Amino acid sequence: MAVAELSPSFTKTHLHSSQLSSLSTRLANFRRCAFRPLPRARNSLTISCSVAPNQVQAPVAAQNEVPKTKTECFGVFCLTYDLKAEEETKTWKKLINIAVSGAAGMISNHLLFKLASGEVFGPDQPIALKLLGSERSFQALEGVAMELEDSLFPLLREVSISIDPYEVFQDVEWALLIGAKPRGPGMERAGLLDINGQIFAEQGKALNAVASRNVKVIVVGNPCNTNALICLKNAPNIPAKNFHALTRLDENRAKCQLALKAGVFYDKVSNMTIWGNHSTTQVPDFLNARINGFPVKEVIRDQKWLEEEFTEKVQKRGGVLIKKWGRSSAASTSVSIVDAIRSLITPTPEGDWFSSGVYTTGNPYGIAEDIVFSMPCRSKGDGDYEFVKDVIFDDYLLERITRTEAELLAEKRCVAHLIGEGIAFCDLPEDTMLPGEM
Amino acid sequence: MAVAELSPSFTKTHLHSSQLSSLSTRLANFRRCAFRPLPRARNSLTISCSVAPNQVQAPVAAQNEVPKTKTECFGVFCLTYDLKAEEETKTWKKLINIAVSGAAGMISNHLLFKLASGEVFGPDQPIALKLLGSERSFQALEGVAMELEDSLFPLLREVSISIDPYEVFQDVEWALLIGAKPRGPGMERAGLLDINGQIFAEQGKALNAVASRNVKVIVVGNPCNTNALICLKNAPNIPAKNFHALTRLDENRAKCQLALKAGVFYDKVSNMTIWGNHSTTQVPDFLNARINGFPVKEVIRDQKWLEEEFTEKVQKRGGVLIKKWGRSSAASTSVSIVDAIRSLITPTPEGDWFSSGVYTTGNPYGIAEDIVFSMPCRSKGDGDYEFVKDVIFDDYLLERITRTEAELLAEKRCVAHLIGEGIAFCDLPEDTMLPGEM
Repeated sequence: MAVAELSPSFTKTHLHSSQLSSLSTRLANFRRCAFRPLPRARNSLTISCSVAPNQVQAPVAAQNEVPKTKTECFGVFCLTYDLKAEEETKTWKKLINIAVSGAAGMISNHLLFKLASGEVFGPDQPIALKLLGSERSFQALEGVAMELEDSLFPLLREVSISIDPYEVFQDVEWALLIGAKPRGPGMERAGLLDINGQIFAEQGKALNAVASRNVKVIVVGNPCNTNALICLKNAPNIPAKNFHALTRLDENRAKCQLALKAGVFYDKVSNMTIWGNHSTTQVPDFLNARINGFPVKEVIRDQKWLEEEFTEKVQKRGGVLIKKWGRSSAASTSVSIVDAIRSLITPTPEGDWFSSGVYTTGNPYGIAEDIVFSMPCRSKGDGDYEFVKDVIFDDYLLERITRTEAELLAEKRCVAHLIGEGIAFCDLPEDTMLPGEM
Repeated sequence: MAVAELSPSFTKTHLHSSQLSSLSTRLANFRRCAFRPLPRARNSLTISCSVAPNQVQAPVAAQNEVPKTKTECFGVFCLTYDLKAEEETKTWKKLINIAVSGAAGMISNHLLFKLASGEVFGPDQPIALKLLGSERSFQALEGVAMELEDSLFPLLREVSISIDPYEVFQDVEWALLIGAKPRGPGMERAGLLDINGQIFAEQGKALNAVASRNVKVIVVGNPCNTNALICLKNAPNIPAKNFHALTRLDENRAKCQLALKAGVFYDKVSNMTIWGNHSTTQVPDFLNARINGFPVKEVIRDQKWLEEEFTEKVQKRGGVLIKKWGRSSAASTSVSIVDAIRSLITPTPEGDWFSSGVYTTGNPYGIAEDIVFSMPCRSKGDGDYEFVKDVIFDDYLLERITRTEAELLAEKRCVAHLIGEGIAFCDLPEDTMLPGEM
């Protein structure tokens, strides 16, 4: 084990991946470490930690019990951290591993701090954050990890950064896939589907290889429905129903627009479904939604507004925000990711539901099978969900659902090569990407 | 009352400020509205709301009881919102008004969502957010307010945006003053003190005129100690001890660096004081700080590191982060603002304390009176604080405290014209602004 002393507070160690399993057990009980793959050598890792306990010369603490025989070992690995041994932490749940891709981006910059603060998983849930970035963003990833350090979140017990999904996804129970490439100048939508599809194919393979067998995956990077499909198709050993495409921001915006129109507070709007694709073909469903328990149409009698303006307002919200604010809506997107997670880990309120882009096979609505389509779901709070039975359809709603379904089937044909279905054939009729949400 | 219909969901009304008091009473019970002063006419306001309840044609809800006789009134003012009338909200505390300046900036973009989520003031504390921006940032302010809408925070009951501190500070119980001008090319530090000092002098006057008589003010915009002094001097009717300059990020960073050096988790570091100015003369106090209850010097026996590297690591952290991350540390700054607020509204743990830049008059440490100086404080959780008695000093600590005290006294002479003490005389010996934290 070659060791190079970098600076008084940095210890660097080169390891082979075969040594990782025993390490990971020890790490699971300990704190912030940065795993960094050496360029072009997956099996060789650089593990850098800012803690140099070999410089600790006094009894750190009676209750910490650092074995003195270990003083020749290196860095953080000399210390073990036992949550069960301390009064404040012994009633805590078992640490969970959460992977976040695109971790140096703006959405993650909000989301990571929410996860670390305990706001999402509760005040007794210790957290390990595993940040996936790119080579280009590696410095920024380090910056994010340093800011997480400086925030002193008691529940945040481990932070690692890497550009290798096979490392980052090791044993993760949640994978929040935010990173995606934006469309370059002149790039066709098919090109974007391909380039991002390849990223999500690789990430699916990595999840399949190393993640928890019951990992929950939320795909945010766009085009998120088809990215989620690609991801789940490349992870055959993980249940397909564990993959979600984020349409929660659309749901939240739809609730807000109905509340604004009706002149009620937004918490009075319930049963809001976004059907279909996270694109301009999405269908915010005002037939089934309710305001103060009443059908929307009984409260907002302006049918023309509902049919002609409401959906457009929801879809164009992101574009309007970019104009106002000069950048895309990272803060509210991260809030909606938190909402999506919470909807899976807390029981859905009686009579209500939430929307998520999920795998259609077995759905009760007659949606084409084998795509990822936003539909109404309920959860018992166990991380799983079931489809809502009591929804109604009319011709107007069905017609629009058919249109967004056709779009997703066309997107699927575009990425056939990435889901093991032969040669791609791309006939997307028009560009329906939501403005600014790439 | 002139009314111009802007769009189906926007209603615009021109009002005189004399009409505001009755309006504000009605608004206090209701929701999101945007107050916008017309350019160059303080007494004439534009109030724009996205709710157009005159378009609601059906009974909104039985339990909402919107009086039907009010259908000719305008927009949101037709509705009253009574938290006491509903099951879920009737046990909530009284709504509090929180002002945030620099509301379109990155620190606020993190902070506002934390305030709105209930993470800071708790799950039964409804919140009104009053956002102060500049003419240049007004569109961005609207964007922030829209993102807050889209986040559907149940506790967030009112959002207003304005460029006039006299409006924004009306009845606020907390004023979080984040906005400050960055130094332009070639600007001397004295110039920066003057230009920001004028902003904080105006904001102090506005607080004095319209804020709650017990408003708590946290100044984040730099140079924050002297800005806080200017602010409190211009608000003679508000207790001087209610003004704070944020040194909590320095405290958090100091705790983190001691933890890293000692190889312990950061929650083991306590009793951390930052003395003095939020500048490179700041004094992170390793004499009084403790690790696992032991004096730091008994745990970290590397005196050279403590004296020569520790303070520099704390001070330079912000600069290192800017290099890594490409921008200043907005996320961890906003976490430290939350920490600062929480330290005032929750009882300080037995035996511990926190640092805040506070008014020195009456301090027990022999610090010069009549400046704002970071010192160790304890709180009963009532929003107030007291100075910690049991701190020790040695020559090394006293010498450094004297240096940062001298700097703050020099800064005070620089802004004499802004605090009613005659003609400014600026003899700042060197530039001690923290890197990237302007």
